[in-house]
Amino acid sequence: MNIELINTGSELMLGRVLNTHQQWICRKLADSGRVVTRQVAVEDEANAIRDAVAEALERADLIITTGGLGPTSDDITRDLVAQLLGLELREDASALANIEGFFRQRGRPMPPSTRIQAMVPEGGDVIHNAHGTAPGLAIPIHPSRAKAASGPQWLVMLPGPPRELRPMFEKQILPFIEKHYPNNESFVSLTLRTTGMGESLVEERIAPELRELLNRGLGIGYCARTGEVDVRLVSKGSDGQKLVQEAALICRKLLAPHVYGEGDELIETELVRELIRQRQSVSVAESCTGGLVGHRITNVPGSSEVFHGGVVAYHNDVKVSTLGVPESVLATEGAVSEACARAMADGVRRLLKSDWAISVTGIAGPGGGSTEKPVGLAYIGVASAKETRAVRVMNPFDRETFKHSTSQQALDLLRRAISAQSSAGNG
Amino acid sequence: MNIELINTGSELMLGRVLNTHQQWICRKLADSGRVVTRQVAVEDEANAIRDAVAEALERADLIITTGGLGPTSDDITRDLVAQLLGLELREDASALANIEGFFRQRGRPMPPSTRIQAMVPEGGDVIHNAHGTAPGLAIPIHPSRAKAASGPQWLVMLPGPPRELRPMFEKQILPFIEKHYPNNESFVSLTLRTTGMGESLVEERIAPELRELLNRGLGIGYCARTGEVDVRLVSKGSDGQKLVQEAALICRKLLAPHVYGEGDELIETELVRELIRQRQSVSVAESCTGGLVGHRITNVPGSSEVFHGGVVAYHNDVKVSTLGVPESVLATEGAVSEACARAMADGVRRLLKSDWAISVTGIAGPGGGSTEKPVGLAYIGVASAKETRAVRVMNPFDRETFKHSTSQQALDLLRRAISAQSSAGNG
Repeated sequence: MNIELINTGSELMLGRVLNTHQQWICRKLADSGRVVTRQVAVEDEANAIRDAVAEALERADLIITTGGLGPTSDDITRDLVAQLLGLELREDASALANIEGFFRQRGRPMPPSTRIQAMVPEGGDVIHNAHGTAPGLAIPIHPSRAKAASGPQWLVMLPGPPRELRPMFEKQILPFIEKHYPNNESFVSLTLRTTGMGESLVEERIAPELRELLNRGLGIGYCARTGEVDVRLVSKGSDGQKLVQEAALICRKLLAPHVYGEGDELIETELVRELIRQRQSVSVAESCTGGLVGHRITNVPGSSEVFHGGVVAYHNDVKVSTLGVPESVLATEGAVSEACARAMADGVRRLLKSDWAISVTGIAGPGGGSTEKPVGLAYIGVASAKETRAVRVMNPFDRETFKHSTSQQALDLLRRAISAQSSAGNG
Repeated sequence: MNIELINTGSELMLGRVLNTHQQWICRKLADSGRVVTRQVAVEDEANAIRDAVAEALERADLIITTGGLGPTSDDITRDLVAQLLGLELREDASALANIEGFFRQRGRPMPPSTRIQAMVPEGGDVIHNAHGTAPGLAIPIHPSRAKAASGPQWLVMLPGPPRELRPMFEKQILPFIEKHYPNNESFVSLTLRTTGMGESLVEERIAPELRELLNRGLGIGYCARTGEVDVRLVSKGSDGQKLVQEAALICRKLLAPHVYGEGDELIETELVRELIRQRQSVSVAESCTGGLVGHRITNVPGSSEVFHGGVVAYHNDVKVSTLGVPESVLATEGAVSEACARAMADGVRRLLKSDWAISVTGIAGPGGGSTEKPVGLAYIGVASAKETRAVRVMNPFDRETFKHSTSQQALDLLRRAISAQSSAGNG
């Protein structure tokens, strides 16, 4: 199957925004056993879009475009595609109703220019947009103008904003693709998410033990991000499910406790689930992460069941007055120290009356480092009724990467502490 | 000038990594007054790469490829391009010396497989790689096989790793492009960042007033993200700078106070700069945003000068015990109310002793909404020594988008309050 993805947008060609659609859509399709053959990006310019779509029509079974469906004058994809395919545009009642409802719900008048988004090329299917005004469109290509190859050919047009495109793709487009382009053979894919080990170490540990499964048709892929490595296990055919499950079991055994989840699961999701399961609560005391740990925990729906709150103690005064860190600790050990991290975790646990607490204190940079305490240094504390301890980590990255890595380690430390205490309790 | 960028890599087509090369290279070229006409990504597969390069040769003045120059079996771009152009590969002494030096410097033996990276298509220029082993290559295309158009045609091949590609591009490739493809006319681009107005409203307000400048050669583009719209003003030619400046002035007048910055500036950067300039400090009290407002402020280097800290009052107990929100407010108005937002802002301002305070309380969803107080409702408070006020906003989005939008509005409300108080003070 030949799939071509066309991303339109001058902001892409001017390098103003990252093309996150490419990765996201390619990923979703790969997970469903389909690989995008070619991705093309062009600016919002009539000839560029027309050429890209016309060329794709000659090659691809399925063409997906993103962007250019909005209400402003540079949103020209819908018109160009209709023109190229010789299709009239007609106003669709359901699409118009959705636009009117969108503004009504927000108590705002509907700008007349937004009405154009209800125009649909004749014969095209309207794909409801639950999070915005421009519907998606699926247009069947008539065999007379289609590529030589047999089989169906569709052009699917998606709105540009990710929060509109993503739910639409998952809930409507993927089932549409499964229906019109069924996979000939089964395809199984499972991604294990690990943290705290480098990519080559992960590979060294699991690759030798997976050799036999590789010979039987297993595929492995590694994807490293800061502080994390995904291990992707894939297989095709009737034996695929069994192969992948066997491999996952081996990996989990060899990599535990570094494996924290599967698929797109985040460490905070796993942590909140575990806290809910154990009916335990948590609070956070953050200095260098500035609120990021609390932000990540509260990204998880249902976190209000377990998250009491936090104190962002950016200034040392706040560490002392609100969290009760002893002035002597700051004077002798400094704010970036094991003792301070422990005092912060104890302080917030007491203040917000939670079962567990996490604390983070460190030097995010670019300023504020010294030879003894360089930029990238952080201490992470974990407190419970049983014990309070702190670990030293070193994340010598740019400011935002430092914050992300440190928050990741803090969430992971708590995840492991809870699971260790739970095992000990059960033993 | 027609520039085509070809990114090769199976990991791109499987959606395992983001294509950061596209944004980075497009941005560097746009800043130099050159816009990439088309970007194509294909997997590491011979036919896919060969087709993409062959098609680009028919269209583009300059073709840039990334990836596929390394030593492993999936690095096939160099071989394919030589084959396609009918050029012999020859070992280049300087490239080989660089590879040998790379391993010698690290005290490691040179793996025999890495030697292949010194192979260069005849007639090609070797571009020294200061951070890796695979050199870049610049290959002049012979007029007999070049596109119809006049002028020089080059194919430039760059190594895939960003930390090798980026310095090579800035130090060697950009000067190469300036030399072989000098700009005939100047190119000016300016992006205004706005918040708090929809895309269509922004266009309705400015487009009529810009009509005359459009006729004189101004270009306008819009890029909408949640809660934000970028307005991009571009122009070419000797009059370009003047046109863009004139347009920017008109937009700033018509859209103020929605314009918060230019270029890549974030609202939090602008806010921190303004606080530093006025020697004012701030603290935050967050409920539904869970720490995101503090996280965004502390993403800005230097924010420790003005940010005291915050309280994440997720549970109502914390609102009462730590921030001093009266129990009566919670009982009569509820936690998601104007009165609670005001009390939270006052409470954190007092507790953390700052000049300003922001508070946020709302319903992030998916659960917790009611007819009277639906998911998406939030109140944002701003407190100073002079006054405390709160506004009601409605962000009926998914949980993470809700948090982002609400934090954006909170940062913007403070930014405007500070600037209003400062103007009043000056008046």
